[in-house]
Order: sequence, then structure tokens, then C-alpha cells
Amino acid sequence: MAAPAPDIGSRSHAQSLDAADPLAPYREQFVHADEGLIYLLGNSLGRLPVASAKRVEQAVGAEWGERLIRGWNDGWLAAPGRIGDKLGALIGAGPGQVVVDDSTTVNLYKAMMAALALRPERTRIITDALNFPSDLYLLEGCVRTLGDRHEIVRLPSADGVTVDLQTLLAAIDERTALVTLSQVVFRSGFLHDAETITRRAREAGALTLWDMSHSVGVVPAALDDWGVDFAVGCTYKYLNGGPGSPAFLYVNAALPAETRSPVWGWFGHREPFRFDLDYRPSEGIDRFRAGSPAVLSLLALEPSVEMILEAGVEAIREKSLALTGCLIDLYDAKLAGAGYQLATPREPHRRGSQISLRHPEAFRIRRAVAEHHQLLIDFREPDTLRLGLAPLYTRFAEVWDAVEALVEVVASEAYLRYSGDRNGLT
Amino acid sequence: MAAPAPDIGSRSHAQSLDAADPLAPYREQFVHADEGLIYLLGNSLGRLPVASAKRVEQAVGAEWGERLIRGWNDGWLAAPGRIGDKLGALIGAGPGQVVVDDSTTVNLYKAMMAALALRPERTRIITDALNFPSDLYLLEGCVRTLGDRHEIVRLPSADGVTVDLQTLLAAIDERTALVTLSQVVFRSGFLHDAETITRRAREAGALTLWDMSHSVGVVPAALDDWGVDFAVGCTYKYLNGGPGSPAFLYVNAALPAETRSPVWGWFGHREPFRFDLDYRPSEGIDRFRAGSPAVLSLLALEPSVEMILEAGVEAIREKSLALTGCLIDLYDAKLAGAGYQLATPREPHRRGSQISLRHPEAFRIRRAVAEHHQLLIDFREPDTLRLGLAPLYTRFAEVWDAVEALVEVVASEAYLRYSGDRNGLT
Repeated sequence: MAAPAPDIGSRSHAQSLDAADPLAPYREQFVHADEGLIYLLGNSLGRLPVASAKRVEQAVGAEWGERLIRGWNDGWLAAPGRIGDKLGALIGAGPGQVVVDDSTTVNLYKAMMAALALRPERTRIITDALNFPSDLYLLEGCVRTLGDRHEIVRLPSADGVTVDLQTLLAAIDERTALVTLSQVVFRSGFLHDAETITRRAREAGALTLWDMSHSVGVVPAALDDWGVDFAVGCTYKYLNGGPGSPAFLYVNAALPAETRSPVWGWFGHREPFRFDLDYRPSEGIDRFRAGSPAVLSLLALEPSVEMILEAGVEAIREKSLALTGCLIDLYDAKLAGAGYQLATPREPHRRGSQISLRHPEAFRIRRAVAEHHQLLIDFREPDTLRLGLAPLYTRFAEVWDAVEALVEVVASEAYLRYSGDRNGLT
Repeated sequence: MAAPAPDIGSRSHAQSLDAADPLAPYREQFVHADEGLIYLLGNSLGRLPVASAKRVEQAVGAEWGERLIRGWNDGWLAAPGRIGDKLGALIGAGPGQVVVDDSTTVNLYKAMMAALALRPERTRIITDALNFPSDLYLLEGCVRTLGDRHEIVRLPSADGVTVDLQTLLAAIDERTALVTLSQVVFRSGFLHDAETITRRAREAGALTLWDMSHSVGVVPAALDDWGVDFAVGCTYKYLNGGPGSPAFLYVNAALPAETRSPVWGWFGHREPFRFDLDYRPSEGIDRFRAGSPAVLSLLALEPSVEMILEAGVEAIREKSLALTGCLIDLYDAKLAGAGYQLATPREPHRRGSQISLRHPEAFRIRRAVAEHHQLLIDFREPDTLRLGLAPLYTRFAEVWDAVEALVEVVASEAYLRYSGDRNGLT
């Protein structure tokens, strides 16, 4: 007997997608303290991998507690580079070019200052209005520190979702010192064409800095092949490193030897344990290290990076596109009619692993679905809901349930019971 | 019957000091995986508090694992300031002036850049050759970034142990933008007179930045009363925060409102969750925050800060001076005759909580005492051994045992079995 044609709007269809999902077994490698919770915030804080909890327990008890100071030689000193190399394999970076240390913000700062110092005669910085605010604030601060000689060109977004590629390419010229963008935009999930933009920047002699916070681990990249100069990214989103886990910094080894962090710390010294009085930077990526890494937060990341390497970024991307595609189908079938507006590009090559929805009552809807349907999603002013789909643990059935919840709280007007006061922090 | 006069060179005397020690019960609040180990490296990495292991377990399982993203509002967001305020009480800082976040190196950088921006017309920076190398490297880097307009005056040490106070005071004048020193010097344990130096700097209109990495938690301070402008310090030494736990930064609230971190991150924004495109710094110490704090490493610190507040820094200082005094007595009685040379000031008001010893065979002696006597101490090129005495868990009997070990490996020539090759990292 032939199976009936699937009804994409039915829960059983979603369940059949889960049944056929080769990555489905990975869900069991994460802690699910509350099986009823629909957690679509892997784009903000990834779930806790079972192996990470064990790794931290070991780092505390067997390493800090027992080995004490000897832990540094046992593996802590090497961890930023060791984990950096593993992470590099997720983004097309050969060994010795990635370090995991400090926050995304601090790494962005280091990269921006390093880049601007390499192009002292150029005075324009190209970015866009969809970039993460911290990235924009940092640029302002760098320009101030460097004597207000630079102009920050913040290209607008006509629709709040995308930035026109041709406008971007046309803005890059021989005055451009640096092009810095988020590969996937935090608000809309729009995926920039990093390869084409990087190529244009190289042609113009400009440097590139990609913020991969919302793409690392879910979108394949080829930083070395594309000729990217600098990249940074969070490790607590799709990389599941835990709250505030150290960020990564990629510095292309082909950059000149004088490429230098502005923060001349002892961990960036060629021989830190000689305690020389004068600075001699390390030759490799280590020269971008500053002080001691936050070891517990750092080691918590490693098991998840290994899990993602095992699963494969290509396979993860495939499921990611299936998940976001499923959500777009359900948007067309159900959400559009309930007053939601899709705020993520429909084309697979232009989206990351999240779907954004606009609704005039988004703030109250977010609260209502949390309380009535155990659905956690997030809200960004003034009217945007973000649904992050983490391929290693998000089920198609959860996407279906989330859509039902979003429809239900509008249809029942359940959201009207909640205040619109923004007294919370997020 | 009258007790016999104590023989300060006897182990029973050391044991009687332990028996009379009011802080002795605190030792049980730390993990001692190996009771035979004599760990005199609390000045490098403090022992694991029992409560910290529990706190991290909770942060991983009950917070990250169960609460997931909600952990930020539950307490993670506030943790850098909350723990900062508690830590502030250890150093004479009123609430709202201390934040725990980023590394010592990154915080030093922020403070240096902020200070130099407040004194644009002044071009001299006063420090000394005993300052921690990272502090000196950072100054070099800042001067480079700011266009090589500043002169770094690195006052020498005649004996490698101390820096002459009068020379320091005389060097501070109306050309001085910043005076930055380590309150306790890492190599010798020399304690600067921070109050007098700060007063002189204020008279001259210069700003001060104290690195308290080797003093916080064991030496009382009164930053507000002294009028210190900036201070930073490690939290993984006498504060027992664990490997690479985030550092603290103190910014005096009396500084002008335009005092600004060079790293304009979103966590320093007045309303970070509005995601504005333009930077408006927070009014308080939060404007020195950059990105997400490394939560697991941060929360590991809090129980120990609370324990130190309970024990009291004055009581800790009293025991610290008794411990270092005991070691100096034993130096006179035993170590001087075995070829060691005291490299820490004898006067209590000029020393922190470590004793440094020089010996031509220091490198090999360090290895020999580790293997033959389970004594862990550290070595600094070319010939210095550092013995860190952590009052909350170091026993007088351990000091006695350490001295016996140091004498024994020289007398037996056991150290000759070890290579002097510096192939290790520390």
C-alpha cells in the first residue's frame, strides 16, 4: 500500500520527520530536566550536554581539587589552543589560528584594533545596522581611542531583515580599512554571503572581521579558503559551552607578523614563564591571548565541540534547513493567518538556524506561551520573537508544538492576561 | 608547673601554634585530597573550597541544566556586581565600585586606558621593575596604541626585593599621568606603602592603579579612604576562585562621569537589552563590563569570598604575619646555614603572605622537595623559590615541615639527581 500524501500541517508528519532524522540520537546526549519544556533558545544558550557536566565535575574535583597548580601543565595552559584547533575544524580554519579565551566582546575589540593598525592610511569601516550592538559600540570606542580619524559606515536595512549584497559590495573601496559584519544576523537570522563579501574586501585591500556568534556550529564556513582575516564568535549558543563560556578568535596565519593584539598580556608573550620585563609577542595565535583563561568555563565547552565534529557541520546544516523550512511551511499554513509576520529570509542560502516572527503583541505572546505551553522563545524590541532551532536536540515535533502554541495564545487571547511592561531584563 | 620555654626550631612549637590558632577550623572547609601534600602555592592557585565544588555543581545541573536561559535573570546577570560588592568589603571599597569579570590582564588594560584618557596632557607613567610583567607589557602596548606620547618610568630595585619609597615618591610629579604598581610584589612578597604613594599621587594630580593580585584577601586595604582611583586583582590566589576565575576591577565612584573603558561592550551599556545601535554607557561600575561573564568560573568564587568575609581580613592578616614570621625565624635558625638567602623584607609592614628564598640550585631543589617530601612550592627564574602561606589552610606545622624538607634535600644532596633543564613551563 502506498502511504498517504503527508499533511505538512499535521503533528504526525513532524513525528515522521523525527523518525527519519539521522541526528535524532544526539538529543539524548543533552540533559532534559523537564521533558515537557519546548526550548527554542539554542541560539541564545545551548542546552547542557551530559558530557559537559561530567567534564566540569572532573575539572573541579580531580583537577583543581587534587592536582592543584599542576593542572596548568596537565592541560589547562594548552586548552585555549587545543579547543581552538578543534573548533577551527568547524569553520574551515587550519590548526594554530584559533584560540578560545576571553569574551566575544573582548575578542572583537582585539581584532578591530589589530585590523585598524594594519591599515593606518585607511579611514573607513564598513558594517551594517543589523550587526550586533556590541560590535557597533566597540567600533565607536575604537574610533574614539584612535583619535576620531575613522568613519563608520553603517549600511541600513530596508526591511529590518536583510542587507542588500550589491549595496554592501559597492560600499567597499580603497578607503576601506575594515569590513565587519555578523555572518548570521542576531535579529532576523539573515545569513550574509561571507565568501563574496570577503572576496570583494580582499580585492579592495580591506580587511574582514566576521562575527560568527550566530553561525558557528550550524552553518559551514571556509575561513581559510575564503581568505577571511579575523573572525570571532560565541561558544554558548549552538556550541553549548555553557553560560558565558569563553569565545573564539580566529586570526589568519597569512596576516603579517606584526599583526598585534592591543592587549599585551603575559599569556601572549613568547615565553610567559620567563617573566621578562619587556614584551616579545608569541609568533602564533597565542599572541592574542591576554591573561589566564577561565578554566572551568573553558573546559565545559570541549565535549560539545567534539560532539559537533562527530555529527558533522554539513549534516547539522542539512537538518537546520529542514527545521527552519518546516517552520516556514507552518508559518504559511498557520502563523500568517494568526497575525504573525515572517522576519527571516525564505531562501535557504540566506538564513541561519533561527526563524524570527514579528507580531504587534510579541512581548505578551512570549510570556503567554511560556506559561501556558512551556514554550521558551525570546523577544527583541519592539515586536520580534526569535525561535532558535538547534539541530542536535530540537525535534520537528517541537517545532510543530511551538506553532500550535503561538496560534493558540492568539486565538484564545490568552496573551491579554499579561502586562506589556518591560520590567524584565530580557 | 611552668611550661618549658618554647624551642622555636621544634615541630612541637609549630604544633602548639596550630593548636592556639583561631582560624585553624577553616582548614576543614577546603578539599584535601592528599593529606600528605604540603601545598605552599596559595599565592598561585588557592585550594578548592568544599562549598565551591557544591556551588559549581549547582550552577551546572540546577541552573544551566534546568533553568537554562532563565539563569541570567535568576542571578547570573547580577553576579559580577554582587560578588564585586562582597569582594569590595575586603579591600575597603563601598558598594557599586567593584565588578568581577574578565581577566586581570584585560581589567588592567581597561583601567590603564581609562586613566590615561583622563590625563591627556600628562605623559609620564610611573611603575617599577618589580611589577608583574603583564602589567609592564600592557603599559608598553597602551603607549604604542596612544601614539608613543608617553614615557614609562620603570623605577629599579637595588636588591631585587624592594623599591625605595622615597625614590618612588620623588618620581611622582605634575608630569605624571598614572602611578601603577603591584601592592605586593609577586617575586619577593614586598608590600608597597600604598596609602602613602596614593596620597603623593593625589597631591601631584596623578591617578593610581594598584594591582592587588598578591594582596587581596590577605592584606587589609582601604581603597576608598586612601583615595585610590583604580585597582584590579586576581581571584584565584588567596581568594580561592579556581583556575583562571574572573578578576576584579575597582573604579572609584568619585572619578568623573566620563571615565570610560576602552572596550565599549554591550554589558556596559545603560540598557543592554534594548539593543540600541548607539552606545550609552551605564552610570556605575557596570560601564566597565564588556561581554558575558564566564558564569561557571565566576560563581565558583563566591563561597570563598563569603568565607573570607566571615573569617575577617584582619584576623587573616594576623595569622599571615605569624606564619611568615615563623618561616623567617626558621630561616634564621636553619635555612641560612643551608645556603638559602631570604628575599622578602623582614619588617611585617613591608611583606605580604609569601616568603621568597634564593638559592643557586633553586630550580633543582624545587623538584627534589616535590618528589622526596611532597612539598609543592614554585620557582621563578633565575634562582628564587616562593613559599605562599594561605592563612585559611596553611598550618604552622607545614611551614616547619617545609623548612625541614628544604634543609634535607640540600644536606643529602638529593637535588643533584635532578636536571636543571628548563623544559617545563613553570
